[in-house]
Amino acid sequence: MSKPLILITNDDGIYAPGIRTLIRVMQEIGDILVVAPDKPQSGMGHAITTTIPLRIKKVFHNGEYNEYATNGTPVDCIKFSDYLLNRIRPDLIVSGINHGSNASINIIYSGTMAAVLEGAINNIPAIGFSVTDFSHHIDLSFTEKYVRKIALNVLEHGLPPNTALNVNIPYFQDQPVKGIRVCRQARAYWKETFEEKKDPHNRAYYWLTGDFCLTDDKDDTDQWALDNNYVAVVPVQVDFTSYNTISLINKWDFHV
Amino acid sequence: MSKPLILITNDDGIYAPGIRTLIRVMQEIGDILVVAPDKPQSGMGHAITTTIPLRIKKVFHNGEYNEYATNGTPVDCIKFSDYLLNRIRPDLIVSGINHGSNASINIIYSGTMAAVLEGAINNIPAIGFSVTDFSHHIDLSFTEKYVRKIALNVLEHGLPPNTALNVNIPYFQDQPVKGIRVCRQARAYWKETFEEKKDPHNRAYYWLTGDFCLTDDKDDTDQWALDNNYVAVVPVQVDFTSYNTISLINKWDFHV
Repeated sequence: MSKPLILITNDDGIYAPGIRTLIRVMQEIGDILVVAPDKPQSGMGHAITTTIPLRIKKVFHNGEYNEYATNGTPVDCIKFSDYLLNRIRPDLIVSGINHGSNASINIIYSGTMAAVLEGAINNIPAIGFSVTDFSHHIDLSFTEKYVRKIALNVLEHGLPPNTALNVNIPYFQDQPVKGIRVCRQARAYWKETFEEKKDPHNRAYYWLTGDFCLTDDKDDTDQWALDNNYVAVVPVQVDFTSYNTISLINKWDFHV
Repeated sequence: MSKPLILITNDDGIYAPGIRTLIRVMQEIGDILVVAPDKPQSGMGHAITTTIPLRIKKVFHNGEYNEYATNGTPVDCIKFSDYLLNRIRPDLIVSGINHGSNASINIIYSGTMAAVLEGAINNIPAIGFSVTDFSHHIDLSFTEKYVRKIALNVLEHGLPPNTALNVNIPYFQDQPVKGIRVCRQARAYWKETFEEKKDPHNRAYYWLTGDFCLTDDKDDTDQWALDNNYVAVVPVQVDFTSYNTISLINKWDFHV
């Protein structure tokens, strides 16, 4: 059997440590191609670049595989790789390892998960990996066995059409992970704050910050799993329809 | 009864004609606040701005209402308005009128709809309006009665928790709209192309373009409604979980 072709991207940028872990594990499993942003693109959501020209640069090659950096977003990277691969479809897309949780509502802001959802849109099996710590200096080697196991499962079983996985790995120093749990996305929102500052010309500017507010206390969610030191695996899809609401709204008077 | 407070944004920028239609109609209905990007932010998806400082400028006021322009994304605008309103919650958020369809998979790339989904996340009733024509020069007055009717329905009935509406209005010159249909999101994807050019230094750069590929031929979708000259109303939500897939993946071997 020929080796699977695995496309690797992230949103923290090609020089972030998290993507190195994915490169190392995926090289054991298949042939790889790396296409990632040339700088951090966190919080880019499903943005695409249409108003400035896209650039791409081969930043590493060793005869076995190539790494390309682009000035685009994670979603641009997925689209660009289709161009680089001359429309050969990868067998798997992996994105991450993101430095910071993409569980719960974080998925919607995440460039890492946007790349994964772009895979789902194109019916390519895709997995986003994140670890619940922002530091670029922690040792991520403990994540490798989970990354490998989940990737091998997806390559073996496939995923349903237009479906991908959002995998979040808890980081509690010195506490071993208890296992893997399949979950649903927890309901939550961010309560934002704007920090006001003045520039040297005395003009106001603002930094967006916020607090994560969980509004879901059930034990079947990704956030519960993480808080209880399990790896959280949420199957995700890209249909935003609220099916339960269709019949409700059909009762409204829409006569104009 | 006091007038409802209506927050208005878009992704084509505060100087685009579409938002003027919303401002006109919403002024009839309630008290309004406009917070919109200072330049086009199409295709920004659910991006937020965390790496550069945010700026905000009052660009218009007439004693009745204020218009603010920001250098941020549509989602930033929603978050910023919470700050401007000192945490007073609007009764309704409207976004648009977007110049171009946000039906089907376009929702995931859309800044207009990201602002609406940000409303849903915060449990504020929100509606995104789009018209299926990119021109900034068409007469949008035919949309006003649909915008008014749908907004009044949402103010009267409310929306279920964490739910919003994606409203797309067809534009076929000289053909009257047949009515309003409640739909689901059509399955589709974009088949992208990269147009390669050379800059004056002979370095390659690329423009992302693509073709919309519908993979769904049922008559209950938003795309079907638009193609048949109906206004498409899709109730949308922000839970990405693929519930059907949870039991399937629970059968995998996750022992590490």
